[in-house]
Amino acid sequence: MKIGIIGAGQLGQMLAQAGISLGMQFSFLDPTKDACAASLGKHFCIAYDDKEALAKLAKQVDVVTFEFENVPSETVAFLSDLVPVYPHADSLKIARDRWLEKNLFKSLDIPTPLFANIESQKDLEEAIMAIGFPAVLKTRTLGYDGKGQKKLKTTNDIINAYAALGNVPCILEHFVNSGEVSLIAVRNQQQQIKFYPLSQNKHQQGILRLSVASEQHPLQPLAESYVSRVLERLDYIGVLAFEFFEVADGLMANEIAPRVHNSGHWTIEGSITSQFENHLRAIANFPLGSTNNRGYSAMINFIGSIPSANQLLAIENCHLHNYSKAFRTGRKVGHATLNSSSMDRLELLIAQVQGLINE
Amino acid sequence: MKIGIIGAGQLGQMLAQAGISLGMQFSFLDPTKDACAASLGKHFCIAYDDKEALAKLAKQVDVVTFEFENVPSETVAFLSDLVPVYPHADSLKIARDRWLEKNLFKSLDIPTPLFANIESQKDLEEAIMAIGFPAVLKTRTLGYDGKGQKKLKTTNDIINAYAALGNVPCILEHFVNSGEVSLIAVRNQQQQIKFYPLSQNKHQQGILRLSVASEQHPLQPLAESYVSRVLERLDYIGVLAFEFFEVADGLMANEIAPRVHNSGHWTIEGSITSQFENHLRAIANFPLGSTNNRGYSAMINFIGSIPSANQLLAIENCHLHNYSKAFRTGRKVGHATLNSSSMDRLELLIAQVQGLINE
Repeated sequence: MKIGIIGAGQLGQMLAQAGISLGMQFSFLDPTKDACAASLGKHFCIAYDDKEALAKLAKQVDVVTFEFENVPSETVAFLSDLVPVYPHADSLKIARDRWLEKNLFKSLDIPTPLFANIESQKDLEEAIMAIGFPAVLKTRTLGYDGKGQKKLKTTNDIINAYAALGNVPCILEHFVNSGEVSLIAVRNQQQQIKFYPLSQNKHQQGILRLSVASEQHPLQPLAESYVSRVLERLDYIGVLAFEFFEVADGLMANEIAPRVHNSGHWTIEGSITSQFENHLRAIANFPLGSTNNRGYSAMINFIGSIPSANQLLAIENCHLHNYSKAFRTGRKVGHATLNSSSMDRLELLIAQVQGLINE
Repeated sequence: MKIGIIGAGQLGQMLAQAGISLGMQFSFLDPTKDACAASLGKHFCIAYDDKEALAKLAKQVDVVTFEFENVPSETVAFLSDLVPVYPHADSLKIARDRWLEKNLFKSLDIPTPLFANIESQKDLEEAIMAIGFPAVLKTRTLGYDGKGQKKLKTTNDIINAYAALGNVPCILEHFVNSGEVSLIAVRNQQQQIKFYPLSQNKHQQGILRLSVASEQHPLQPLAESYVSRVLERLDYIGVLAFEFFEVADGLMANEIAPRVHNSGHWTIEGSITSQFENHLRAIANFPLGSTNNRGYSAMINFIGSIPSANQLLAIENCHLHNYSKAFRTGRKVGHATLNSSSMDRLELLIAQVQGLINE
C-alpha cells in the first residue's frame, strides 16, 4: 500500500518506520529541502499550492494523511477530490482552528475553560471583563509549542495584545493553572476505537518535556467518554490526540491534534502497538492493534540538542530516538523512551536521563 | 553515524529500521537491483569486485557490516583496509566455511556431530565408514536454507553425491535427529556480552518456520558458555547466532551465523532491545541494550507468500513484518511476531497464524 504524508518531519519519519513493516511505501509532501523523513520515501519538495505536483502525488498513492494540521485548506480540499484523505478534511478544519474546536467541545458537553472569539482589540477588552484574569490570548490557527499565544495577567498586558499576535483572529481563554494529561485515541474505518492510557505531561516554556504513561488513571473513563464524542461526531479516521487540563472536579478540554502526537511517543516501546502503527492501520482499513501497556513508560523530549548516545544508551532500558535534525535552540531534535516494571524505578531512570540534559 | 551494510535484503532492512532511531544513515552494497532495503539508504548496486565503487562506499561510511556471510573474502579484505569492518574479516572467514567452523568448535571443547573434510568422492566413501549413516554432506561454503546439502541414509545415496553438490569442497557430518535451539548473542567493542534467551526452532524442508523464545531454558547456561568461548576467541564484534542440536546430554554445535539471524526476529517486539538495535550498538561502539524478554514471544516465517494483512492483524498482539519482496515459492517474504503473557495463550496465537498460512 502506498501512503502519502503531508509533512516530512519526525512524525512522518516515525510513521514510515512503523509502516515499512506493514509493507507500505511512502511519499512525503514537504516544502523543506532537508526534511528528516524524506529519505524514507519519495520526497515531493513542493509548495502546498503546486496543483500539478499535488495531482501527481495523489496519483501515486492509495491514501493521504498528515503529520501536522497547519496545511492550507485548499491543499486538503484539492487532494480530497483525488484520493482518500484521512482524517477527513472536516476533522482537520476543526482541529486547526481553536474557535471551531472549542465550539465543538461545547456542543458535545465537554467542559472547557471560558472562551471568546476575538477579532479586534475591542473584542479583547470586552471579553476580558467576562473571562477575567489570568487569561491567554491565542491565535485561532497556526499556533504550536507555545507560539502564537500571550498570557494576560493584568490590565497592562492587554495593551496592544491583539496587534502583538499579528492582528489575526484569536481566541481568549481563561488560564487554567493545572496539570495536563492527554489521551491518544485511534478509530478505524470499521468504527473500531482504541484508547491508550492517559499521558501525564510536563511542559517548559510551552514545549512538552516529559510524558509519563499512566496505569489505571481514575480519570481514564471520563477522558475516553469525551474523546469518543469527538471521534464519533467527526466520523474520525486515524489517531487523535486530546489534551486536557486536570482540574479539581475532573477534566477540561484544552485542544485536539488530528494526528500522532508527541505525548504518545512512549507508545513505540511502551505499548503493544505504537500510535504510529495504529494510525497507519486505521487509514489503511486494517484492524487496530492492542493499546495495552508494556510495563511503566515515559518519554523525555530532547530540545535543541541530544545528550551523548554513549551515556544515554548506558541507562537501563533507555531507547534513543534521534530525528537526525540539525541542533537548534528550541527545536525538537529527539526523544528517549524509558520502560520499567515499577513506577519507582521509572522515576529513577527519568532522573538519570534528565541529568544528562544540558540546555 | 554512517553505516555501510553488505547486502540489502530483509536483514539489512530491519537493521536500518532500528538504526534510523539512533540517528544513523545507511548505504547498502547489493548487486540486486530491487533489493528490499535499498529504499532506506543509498544503494550501491555494484558487483562485489568493483573496487572503485567499493572504495567510494568505504569513503562514505564510518563502519561496514554484513547482513549475510557469503561475500567474497577479497571484498571483505579490500574494505577492511579502508574502513572498520565488524564482525572482523577473520570471524567471517570462519563462519562461512563449515570446515573451519567445526574445527573452531572442536578446539574450544564445544561438542559437535562427527565430521570430516571431503574433497573428493573417495574422501566421502572413506569418511562414511567412520561417521556412519545417517549423515549429511554439505558444501563447505555458500549453503543456506537447506541448499547445498544432501542427506545420506544408505550406501546408495553416496553414489555421485560429491558430484551432485558440484564437486566443491564439502564436509560430511553425522546426522543428528533432534530439535534445534539457537542462541543470539552480541558483543561490543568494550567486550561487553549479552545473550538473548534460547529460541526453539522448527524447520520444514530446511527452512525455518517457527521460533519460540524460551523462558529460563535449562540449557541456557551451557549455551552461553559455548557461545562465549567463540565470541572471545574471535574477538567478535556484533550479533552472532549459534545453532545447536538439543541432544540427550546437552547441546551439540551445528553452525554459527556472523550476523543478525532469522531465529532472532521475535526480539523486535519480544525483547527490550532487538537483535538489530544491539548489532548496531555493538558496531557503533555504544553500550548494549537489555536482552530481557517482554513476556512470551514467537516468530512465524512467511515463505512464498503472506496471508491477508486484514486477517493477521485481527489476531491478538500479532505484528506483521512484510519485507516488500515479490512472492516466490520458497522465498522468505515476511514474518509475524506474537506476544503473550502466558505460554498457553501464545500457543493458541501461533495456531491462529499458522491456520492462515496456505502454502
